Amino acid sequence: MPEKELRVDLLSVTPHALSLIYAAFRQCYHAGFVADMWPRLLNGEIEREVQADFVRKVLDSGHDSPVEHVSFTYAIEGISRACSHQLVRHRIASYSQQSQRYVTDSMEYVLPPAIARIPEAKKRFERFMEEVGAAYGDLHDILVANGRKSKANEDARFVLPQAAETKIVVTMNCRSLLHFFSLRCCMRAQWEVRAMAQQMLELAKKELPAIFETAGARCEQLGYCPESPKFACGKYPTREQGA
Amino acid sequence: MPEKELRVDLLSVTPHALSLIYAAFRQCYHAGFVADMWPRLLNGEIEREVQADFVRKVLDSGHDSPVEHVSFTYAIEGISRACSHQLVRHRIASYSQQSQRYVTDSMEYVLPPAIARIPEAKKRFERFMEEVGAAYGDLHDILVANGRKSKANEDARFVLPQAAETKIVVTMNCRSLLHFFSLRCCMRAQWEVRAMAQQMLELAKKELPAIFETAGARCEQLGYCPESPKFACGKYPTREQGA
Amino acid sequence: MPEKELRVDLLSVTPHALSLIYAAFRQCYHAGFVADMWPRLLNGEIEREVQADFVRKVLDSGHDSPVEHVSFTYAIEGISRACSHQLVRHRIASYSQQSQRYVTDSMEYVLPPAIARIPEAKKRFERFMEEVGAAYGDLHDILVANGRKSKANEDARFVLPQAAETKIVVTMNCRSLLHFFSLRCCMRAQWEVRAMAQQMLELAKKELPAIFETAGARCEQLGYCPESPKFACGKYPTREQGA
Amino acid sequence: MPEKELRVDLLSVTPHALSLIYAAFRQCYHAGFVADMWPRLLNGEIEREVQADFVRKVLDSGHDSPVEHVSFTYAIEGISRACSHQLVRHRIASYSQQSQRYVTDSMEYVLPPAIARIPEAKKRFERFMEEVGAAYGDLHDILVANGRKSKANEDARFVLPQAAETKIVVTMNCRSLLHFFSLRCCMRAQWEVRAMAQQMLELAKKELPAIFETAGARCEQLGYCPESPKFACGKYPTREQGA
Repeated sequence: MPEKELRVDLLSVTPHALSLIYAAFRQCYHAGFVADMWPRLLNGEIEREVQADFVRKVLDSGHDSPVEHVSFTYAIEGISRACSHQLVRHRIASYSQQSQRYVTDSMEYVLPPAIARIPEAKKRFERFMEEVGAAYGDLHDILVANGRKSKANEDARFVLPQAAETKIVVTMNCRSLLHFFSLRCCMRAQWEVRAMAQQMLELAKKELPAIFETAGARCEQLGYCPESPKFACGKYPTREQGA
Repeated sequence: MPEKELRVDLLSVTPHALSLIYAAFRQCYHAGFVADMWPRLLNGEIEREVQADFVRKVLDSGHDSPVEHVSFTYAIEGISRACSHQLVRHRIASYSQQSQRYVTDSMEYVLPPAIARIPEAKKRFERFMEEVGAAYGDLHDILVANGRKSKANEDARFVLPQAAETKIVVTMNCRSLLHFFSLRCCMRAQWEVRAMAQQMLELAKKELPAIFETAGARCEQLGYCPESPKFACGKYPTREQGA
Repeated sequence: MPEKELRVDLLSVTPHALSLIYAAFRQCYHAGFVADMWPRLLNGEIEREVQADFVRKVLDSGHDSPVEHVSFTYAIEGISRACSHQLVRHRIASYSQQSQRYVTDSMEYVLPPAIARIPEAKKRFERFMEEVGAAYGDLHDILVANGRKSKANEDARFVLPQAAETKIVVTMNCRSLLHFFSLRCCMRAQWEVRAMAQQMLELAKKELPAIFETAGARCEQLGYCPESPKFACGKYPTREQGA
Repeated sequence: MPEKELRVDLLSVTPHALSLIYAAFRQCYHAGFVADMWPRLLNGEIEREVQADFVRKVLDSGHDSPVEHVSFTYAIEGISRACSHQLVRHRIASYSQQSQRYVTDSMEYVLPPAIARIPEAKKRFERFMEEVGAAYGDLHDILVANGRKSKANEDARFVLPQAAETKIVVTMNCRSLLHFFSLRCCMRAQWEVRAMAQQMLELAKKELPAIFETAGARCEQLGYCPESPKFACGKYPTREQGA
């Protein structure tokens, strides 16, 4: 099994994202119909900076549901099954993940950086990955030889490691993304899901800065670390530390 | 209070909707990374008809979660509060609705067609709407005169009728829309939510026929009416009627 | 239409609620199987106070998903349709609401306290409610006389006011309840949904103090008001006010 | 790593489950308040069989949301990480899963039955599990020796197999359970998730037969197999086969 690098691509974003959020916010408090205002939002008659300022202000006041109207779809490869297991626990999202039962020709794996940095660990890890490949191949062959051809993948996959690479298409709306980033960009999160979240955030920031420029771990908005001192990473002081 | 007509506008759809669904389906069963296939989907190297056929086939097999990656955002006006109450019961969706607490200058109402068709009923209905306007105005004035200015709208709105018109921005993904149409395009649904659902469906069909051309009430897919004979509208026979 | 008072009954709570949350928390970090520990949780071998302390500590650390395993089911009557419309916007919950299309014999209404306190307003409100009853009756009769018997309720209900009383059965898990209370027990919330939320919270506190004793508006946990000064009720200082 | 057997325990069910569902259904169509009817439901004045008949009839008519008021909490051990990954994809549910980052002393695994039945395969599988244990131990020691003590588990776990046993506490409401059973009790589902679903269903049937006696794969309700002939297991004919 060869090693695989993380890659996060942004496939799709709701078009006119800022204007759509602006329109949704406005519809809540406005007597008119936003569909009538829509052309003026798109042609710039109502300036983008005006839209962005309004959106920032309402968001700051705690009214965040209108950002749900905009969704981001990412294609992600080079994450481990351990990481995808954490990802799919976020329930307000849609996932299409590569099936290990059907797809078997590209058995690659994710190498944890802490292991990569220690030559002895890296060597041991890589030797084990060869053992995995051998065990998978042997079991597959035995199963086929014993008449279980169509399900050989399904059973042999039980030897595949948590490190096994997977690919996934993920769609989340902006509210769900903000929540996801607040948890997974934190130093307490596992390195891999954090690296993935960080790349997702960079792409979101470029696309829709009004919503994402201040996104990230909760400390970035709060100005202090909400964790107990035991878990604090030190970037910001905790409340107990006089934040 | 003047009458108001239903209007449904499609503000936004996930771009490259068909290709995105195709890509998500493919990622489940494909060894490669869909981000590598993405340019060929967009430039037509993989033809749209090929994409549509594949999507239709997988949907028919019951695998429908990948259609969640595509969402539609509608702006709707001219529906009653009775109708919006039914709409927002669909939980896999995002809503931004005009607030009756904040917006009060445009008190309009929805006139049920069955009432509109009977002159005596229509007259009685319209007379009542004038009584509503008077009661709202009187209460508002009394509350302001008694020092409750900032909340006068909030309290006076208790006299507004279910017929009171509202505006709402709604985002649903395709899976949620298909479910919504299956229930709300049925003749058992109330006329108003059905009229709204029907307009939403027409816009969805035009935009993404591969997913929506066969959408609608459940009978349209099943070829029979799944309701008990007591509730059947007669368009299709029920199972008891030998469907 | 006669007036109706708010009443909130607790029909059902997940049994062994505290122990269930404790067990779910423990399963995350414990090598053994919680089903083996379960009898000792129920028979008090692991003391309730020990369970409560553990649960409080983990909750404080921000790990709140295990409280989802416990749900509360309330039966609520004496709320207006305006209030139920706000309630059902909370999507992580289950609702069974009295249908205005089917149930029509008990047309009662909710009287806003601010209106009740001003005799002139109360009188105007009550007179309007009589007009509603008359309009509903007239329209119903006209529709029946014109051959629309089975749908007469459905159409005539368009004149019913936002004040119209409704009854609803609501189930929410503890995480959703905590979120609901944080928004709806705030003085910024409308008086009616706040009164209802407050009664729900009292019942929850009695049943499961370890989870709910500090629940309520966000200020109660934060020790300051997270709203902008413009919206602050004054119970706690805002951050701008030096909190 | 030693082998581990599947075990499913029912920790908790919403009390008075049948009566609660009955009450919720009734509230939709009944003029009175179900809280007033509640004592007569519990003391048997309204007989259980009457309640069950009513619930079955409404469910058959397609109105299924009131069953959401009742939830089941299961504790499950002896499933693989492959299986738990499939389980947690069901989003309308709550999960508390044993963390591989924190819990490491009980490294056990799930042995697929098809492998267990072939002595050569079983031997190869067991030999590989020893290699896993060795690799995990080696990596853990190397990481600790290189100063990465607190995160040694987190990194070493990348070698753990999909077969690695996990424990999880799961809460689902009845509507979500019915959907889960319809998909996962089907012969198309993977053997392991099917075995788990089957045990969950048996416990649910015993507890609440009115809801679950006809639950299971979709064919059990439909009387035919909704899959294409290619995927049909043969228990029921498909529509193409003249069902």
